[in-house]
Formats: sequence, structure tokens, C-alpha cells
Amino acid sequence: MSDFPKTDLNKVKRLPKRGHYDKETIYSIVDDSLICHVGMAIDGRPIVIPTIHARQGDNILLHGATTSRMLNHVATGAELCITVTHLDGLVLARSVFHHSMNYRSAVLFGKGRLIEDPDEKMEALEVFTEKLIPGRWADARQPTPNESKATKIVTIPIDTASAKIRVGPPGDDDEDYALDIWAGVLPMRTVFGELEVDPLLKDGVDVPDYIHNYANSKQ
Amino acid sequence: MSDFPKTDLNKVKRLPKRGHYDKETIYSIVDDSLICHVGMAIDGRPIVIPTIHARQGDNILLHGATTSRMLNHVATGAELCITVTHLDGLVLARSVFHHSMNYRSAVLFGKGRLIEDPDEKMEALEVFTEKLIPGRWADARQPTPNESKATKIVTIPIDTASAKIRVGPPGDDDEDYALDIWAGVLPMRTVFGELEVDPLLKDGVDVPDYIHNYANSKQ
Repeated sequence: MSDFPKTDLNKVKRLPKRGHYDKETIYSIVDDSLICHVGMAIDGRPIVIPTIHARQGDNILLHGATTSRMLNHVATGAELCITVTHLDGLVLARSVFHHSMNYRSAVLFGKGRLIEDPDEKMEALEVFTEKLIPGRWADARQPTPNESKATKIVTIPIDTASAKIRVGPPGDDDEDYALDIWAGVLPMRTVFGELEVDPLLKDGVDVPDYIHNYANSKQ
Repeated sequence: MSDFPKTDLNKVKRLPKRGHYDKETIYSIVDDSLICHVGMAIDGRPIVIPTIHARQGDNILLHGATTSRMLNHVATGAELCITVTHLDGLVLARSVFHHSMNYRSAVLFGKGRLIEDPDEKMEALEVFTEKLIPGRWADARQPTPNESKATKIVTIPIDTASAKIRVGPPGDDDEDYALDIWAGVLPMRTVFGELEVDPLLKDGVDVPDYIHNYANSKQ
């Protein structure tokens, strides 16, 4: 996959060594997270809303109710900033000054357009459902035409993007390595808990394999 | 603690039953996360940057290098939107349409000011360090005057805010409860992994109790 050209908009200024511009790196950060933070400027005022996203090639899909203010704004074609962040650990340096976090973040820029074609909409709903949990689309009760109408979906071609990543142990000043202060990394990760069965589940319905396996994939 | 008055800016429009305006709820969401997403409108264009935050009463503290574009923008007193989100689970409904996520999010609005007083700055650095890991401030090598100068800290009085929370099992359409489709919640949470000792750690330095206990507090 190719790189996004470095421009004034997407260039990582602080600690440029942590910057990445290749789609492979950026898209793996985007795909690893179920939610993103969508930034909008409405009447010059910033608004940041968390929402589920899915990637379809070089496009980000967002969806919600037809009454969603966020989606109505996105559908106007306004400039957007979509940010995805993973916190991977606390970096405990010897000096307060060099404390940090290990993280992977991606910042994407683009403008959205409403998906109106019913088939394109259905395909996008499948992408969302399969992102939430692979295998669900074929198992769940699929959207009726009225449900599809009540859902607004936008697609946002990614104009430009960059990623910023920190990994590894702390970096202290040379003279501080002699100090009797513990240093290292406390890793963090997201895990699934025990499945909680809907109290209203019909008798005799077992957990399907694809859910069972998915739930065990991050424990 | 009191409530933030509902205004056009902070009111939860979609699914208003999920909206919360009391400081206790909002601040617990803010405090439970190490990072927030800061939204800015720069020349009318939205930019969303993830960063560590700390709360000091009714103010949000952000910090970074003196060269940070984000902090320089914040220091101008521009309008900001600060969003904190926890993803708590996947909500698997019988119908694709009613799939959802359990989450807690807080959206805060305010304008920042630079902290320039050296004592106020030192106090803020202590708040950040103790938020990262309680007990660290007294143990780590504290900032020198030059390190303090190289750090920019802003405080943002929270003008208004709201929270949005979803908990519990899926809500399906009445007729779908008879379907042979498994439904329930797959909970998600963040945990700490095994401590990774800095390869350059001085011989004989043990993990202090406060780090050991903290690491075991989320496993």
C-alpha cells in the first residue's frame, strides 16, 4: 500500500521520528479500534463526538439515526478530522520529565458524502456488523427497508492522514540511569469479559461458535 | 456536586434518556481515563488530538512541550471541545438494527489559559504524575527549573459539559424476541499486563509496592 504525501496538514511536527505515513500502518490502527473521535467545526466551534466506524478501502464509514446532528453535518461535505487512539502502556521513567505513554494514534482528514443507494447502504451495514463481530451479519435478523431508511450512512474518502506511535522503554537523561528509581513500562490492553446473556433470551438458544471464539480471542 | 445547566451546546439530542449533566457522573468518566481527545477549530478546520489529561476541580489540565502546536493554540484562549470515552461492551441484539455498544462518554467545553506561575506549574505536574500512577511523584526524580520551563501547561475551566451512557442488555423489537438468535452483551475493559522492566535498570532496584499494587489493580 502507498503512503500519504507529507503536507502541512498531516505532518507530525512534535517528535517527527514517531510519525508514519504509510497506509498499512495507519489502517491497522484504524481497523484495530471499534470507535473513533470525529472532529467537526460547526460555526467555528470544535465538536468532538465518539462513534463506531468501519473502513472500506480508502474510505471511513460512519452511521447513525437520520436525526443525528453529527451525521447531518458530515453529510453537508464539511471538513472532518477523524482520530483513532490506542493506549498501550504507561512509560515510567526515572525523571518525572521523561514519563510518557506508549500509544498508537491515527489522524485522518476528509469530507463525507451521504450513501443513498439502497444496495450500497446494505453493503455498508454489513461492513459495520462484521466489524463489530465477524459472523454476525449472516446470523442476526437483517435490516428491513424501513430500518435501512431510518439509518443514515456517510462515507468519507481519506484525503490525507498520519499515524504517531511510541513503543519501548523509557528514555532518561544519561546521568539519571544511576539513580535508585525503578523504571519500565506498565502495558495496557483491552480485553473481553464473560458474555452476558440477554435475560430475555429465548430458551434453548446457545452461544454460536463465532461469538464464543471471538469472546475468547482477547482474554 | 452540582449540575451543568442544559443549553443548546451541551444537551444530548439523540436518545436524551442517555444524557447526564451532573458533575459527579461527568467527572468520574473524565477521571477514569488517562487520555482525552482535544478538538480545536484552526482556521475553521477541525483538528482532534489525543493527549493525557488531568482534572483539578472544575478545570482540565493539559501539558506538553513548549513547541506543541496544540498547546500553543489552546493557550490563545480558543474554544475547545474535550471528549473522553470508555467502550464497555458490544451489544448484540437479535436484529442488526438494534446492535449497539455500551459506553460512557463525556463532552466538555471551555477555553484554556497558560499556567505561568512556577509553583502552580509544579503543582500541576504533580497532579499529572499522580494521575498516571499514584505514588510516583514522591519516588521519581522531580522536575528541574529548566525541565519545568520546557513544559507548557494549560488549564481549561469547564464552561459546560454533558455525559452520555449506555448500559445493559440489547433492546429488540417485541416480535424479534421469539427469534432463535443469540443476544446479549460482550463486555470490554482495559487491563494492565505484566510489568516490563527497563533493560537499563540499575541492578538491585526492586519494583516499589505502589507500582506493584497499581499493576495488580486492573488485571
